[in-house]
Amino acid sequence: EDVQSSPDTRHIAIDKVGIKDIRHPVRVRDRSDGEQHTIANFNMYVSLPHNFKGTHMSRFVDILNRHEKEITVKSFKDMLGEMTELLDAESGHIEMNFPYFVMKAAPVSGVQSLMDYDVSFIGEIHDGQPQMNIKVVVPVTSLCPCSKKISDYGAHNQRSHVTVSVRTTGFIWIEELIELVEQEASCELYGLLKRPDEKAVTERAYDNPKFVEDMVRDVAARLNADERVSSYVVESENFESIHNHSAYAMIIKDEESEQA
Amino acid sequence: EDVQSSPDTRHIAIDKVGIKDIRHPVRVRDRSDGEQHTIANFNMYVSLPHNFKGTHMSRFVDILNRHEKEITVKSFKDMLGEMTELLDAESGHIEMNFPYFVMKAAPVSGVQSLMDYDVSFIGEIHDGQPQMNIKVVVPVTSLCPCSKKISDYGAHNQRSHVTVSVRTTGFIWIEELIELVEQEASCELYGLLKRPDEKAVTERAYDNPKFVEDMVRDVAARLNADERVSSYVVESENFESIHNHSAYAMIIKDEESEQA
Amino acid sequence: EDVQSSPDTRHIAIDKVGIKDIRHPVRVRDRSDGEQHTIANFNMYVSLPHNFKGTHMSRFVDILNRHEKEITVKSFKDMLGEMTELLDAESGHIEMNFPYFVMKAAPVSGVQSLMDYDVSFIGEIHDGQPQMNIKVVVPVTSLCPCSKKISDYGAHNQRSHVTVSVRTTGFIWIEELIELVEQEASCELYGLLKRPDEKAVTERAYDNPKFVEDMVRDVAARLNADERVSSYVVESENFESIHNHSAYAMIIKDEESEQA
Amino acid sequence: EDVQSSPDTRHIAIDKVGIKDIRHPVRVRDRSDGEQHTIANFNMYVSLPHNFKGTHMSRFVDILNRHEKEITVKSFKDMLGEMTELLDAESGHIEMNFPYFVMKAAPVSGVQSLMDYDVSFIGEIHDGQPQMNIKVVVPVTSLCPCSKKISDYGAHNQRSHVTVSVRTTGFIWIEELIELVEQEASCELYGLLKRPDEKAVTERAYDNPKFVEDMVRDVAARLNADERVSSYVVESENFESIHNHSAYAMIIKDEESEQA
Repeated sequence: EDVQSSPDTRHIAIDKVGIKDIRHPVRVRDRSDGEQHTIANFNMYVSLPHNFKGTHMSRFVDILNRHEKEITVKSFKDMLGEMTELLDAESGHIEMNFPYFVMKAAPVSGVQSLMDYDVSFIGEIHDGQPQMNIKVVVPVTSLCPCSKKISDYGAHNQRSHVTVSVRTTGFIWIEELIELVEQEASCELYGLLKRPDEKAVTERAYDNPKFVEDMVRDVAARLNADERVSSYVVESENFESIHNHSAYAMIIKDEESEQA
Repeated sequence: EDVQSSPDTRHIAIDKVGIKDIRHPVRVRDRSDGEQHTIANFNMYVSLPHNFKGTHMSRFVDILNRHEKEITVKSFKDMLGEMTELLDAESGHIEMNFPYFVMKAAPVSGVQSLMDYDVSFIGEIHDGQPQMNIKVVVPVTSLCPCSKKISDYGAHNQRSHVTVSVRTTGFIWIEELIELVEQEASCELYGLLKRPDEKAVTERAYDNPKFVEDMVRDVAARLNADERVSSYVVESENFESIHNHSAYAMIIKDEESEQA
Repeated sequence: EDVQSSPDTRHIAIDKVGIKDIRHPVRVRDRSDGEQHTIANFNMYVSLPHNFKGTHMSRFVDILNRHEKEITVKSFKDMLGEMTELLDAESGHIEMNFPYFVMKAAPVSGVQSLMDYDVSFIGEIHDGQPQMNIKVVVPVTSLCPCSKKISDYGAHNQRSHVTVSVRTTGFIWIEELIELVEQEASCELYGLLKRPDEKAVTERAYDNPKFVEDMVRDVAARLNADERVSSYVVESENFESIHNHSAYAMIIKDEESEQA
Repeated sequence: EDVQSSPDTRHIAIDKVGIKDIRHPVRVRDRSDGEQHTIANFNMYVSLPHNFKGTHMSRFVDILNRHEKEITVKSFKDMLGEMTELLDAESGHIEMNFPYFVMKAAPVSGVQSLMDYDVSFIGEIHDGQPQMNIKVVVPVTSLCPCSKKISDYGAHNQRSHVTVSVRTTGFIWIEELIELVEQEASCELYGLLKRPDEKAVTERAYDNPKFVEDMVRDVAARLNADERVSSYVVESENFESIHNHSAYAMIIKDEESEQA
């Protein structure tokens, strides 16, 4: 007898049920190299109607393993449909979080090095209609305009995490989102900097002071101008070098709610 | 000149701006002892209209420190109003996360020991109307019904985190939410168990097998029956003892959206 | 029958056995207020001779709870002796990690605010001889001398964690270790800074550039000059604002090994 | 002028200086597939004599990037020598932490799925003599012998992390260390289990109760019997399903110290 398939009499539907925090090697499409190998952490859920006792947990893992040890972006979308079909569910949700690497050239010397970014694909499917969000955490330098203005010399600066989550109507590269954020920061980060590069990034940050409020507004303005982006959340967390806490700001744009 | 108060021309309002991850000693009201001392982690945000360049970060910390080194639940609500007033904001948001301790008696020996729970107060204020959510993470034992049914002896069990977030219309003790969850689990946890207690909890778990789906449904049923609770989110994450990933389930009830 | 006390025939002694990651409210002696309430995370271990099957886990928790819900530094030392006696062990080890708060005055305005530090007491007892280490993580500002020297203006700076672990022969306040580190940093951190304070800390950091190597050496020099300190480890981790990784340095001084 | 190379007059040598927490894609040798792609987190340090002001941080990253975006075990050893040579240091230290995947067959159905393990390579070089440690965290099931013995039915069990760090004199596969630990646990974990598999693992765990003390002793006995292993640390942390804290045990064997 299949315990999970037996009827349930509590009359309470479950919004999400599935597996959480399972790691799996994946292959992600990459603007420069074609694809890159990385390791993802997955959360996979389906909805469960009130009249079923349980879902079949092993089938979620089945789906992951079926994709031949490595999963591409293409197969990620397929997985959403496959998962709801295999589990006979009206809606499904998959999150895939992974470190992503971009080869960057230092600003003066041109020396190449890798920068790492945390990226998430978050897919939802309702009644066969899939929707996909991409989230990128971009570490940057922020330099405080107030500190610069009031001080005779210097200005406090620090590492900040700018997080952009977008829902798009057309294809967008992870690299496009990263570049968009890096261009609006006081300065971008690099894995490797030679001395003339260090001079360049120090001065660039000093020339581009930004409050945490400026950071999220300037990124939001760029996303507003991109026709492919239908809704977004922009956040910035500055790990203040003069405090033991963060400064934080967030802007949400939700096209659907605005039309309502 | 006050840089933050200068006008802004980007025409983009900010949903949340403030400070994140600041620790502060607090005093929380306690059903048995009157109050307990603990350490909280705070996030404090306000909204910022499109025409202002920045908020005043130091005022958030001011508010925390003004409350004489330790903050009570009462002062938490006051802080919401105070924060939006002091920062001249339409809406405000405060999260306060802290470990909370409850003295429990072991089931047979009656020996007393402390159990720790992660609790959050999440307050929002819009146009002077405050709303408060309480979130409690209750660690429990879950024992798998399928494993019990198909095995000649034994059943896999594990620690699970049941998380309940509620919005209430009347006063509710943190201890009430904890007890409600613990009563619906396969078994509850204790800091200290003597041998007869260990026998009791082992057998109680075996007598009460629960899928992750059962756990969230049974807690949801209890919350549905409580007139003080207007909306909730119930989650359970089981750190499976036979896998290296979690089983997870969630139920959301949002009164407002259901009436719409 | 007591399973744990039955004889063991594998002839393998266990160096440490006990409980890990248990939270408990504590009271810690404080230079200014007499004492402060905080929450500690405990690890408690004893050694186990080869001929015993197991230790008695519940007794560790017993010891914590016996100290009336809150533990002082005095009772911490007692606990080491009590633990090894109660568990009939030759050696014992207790770690107690907790956030610790110090009220600081901003450098110009004098406005008061709390700063938080992660502190650990690490006690060991062998054949009745206790030894105690204190570890303090002090978050500070570090400003890069190279960036300052080669740039026409500005200098990259960031939050750094300076960690000092000391073994002492005489009493030392947690606050003394914190001050010692803060005086050697490019600048110290504050919970709350008004505008003239922000100017002061910005300029102080610019006036005191320090490599990660300088930071650990300057703290080590101070500890070398303190007769109460018999051995130490000094570490600094700089969360570089121009990279997505840290710069790190460490110096160990172990009197015993040097005399050997 | 090269600030870092200028002389230092504080007469304090630095034990470790370098970079911490840098992520990089790597390729690791694999017993079944030849090699697998994964993502590593690196710490890279050298010693610095008292008379030099600083090390050259960019050279550490240089070394990582030089190995053409992906690093093999072979190149890991080369990196140790290369690093100390390039940085003109007497000693060096590299830690590389990465998730590692093994394809396992379920015990009854034989269905294949991946299990993930956290692995570290820790290399040290002193005066040209390299030494290498391998550390593997193996998640397993532990079932409590006391709970089984005193209860009429059932027994509490949970996920445990068994960590083995070895220094070897001959080649050893990561898979060998994993299997050794899994064979000594109450039961091993799998990514995917069908119903007959779940019955098998439930009963196997019940048939093999182990205290945390048993777990470390049984693994230690296996390592004692392996001639390739010269020294080791074995730890087990059981995330108790009846408590909100862990049971923990550790055994150290250090050949050098025993010969002294």
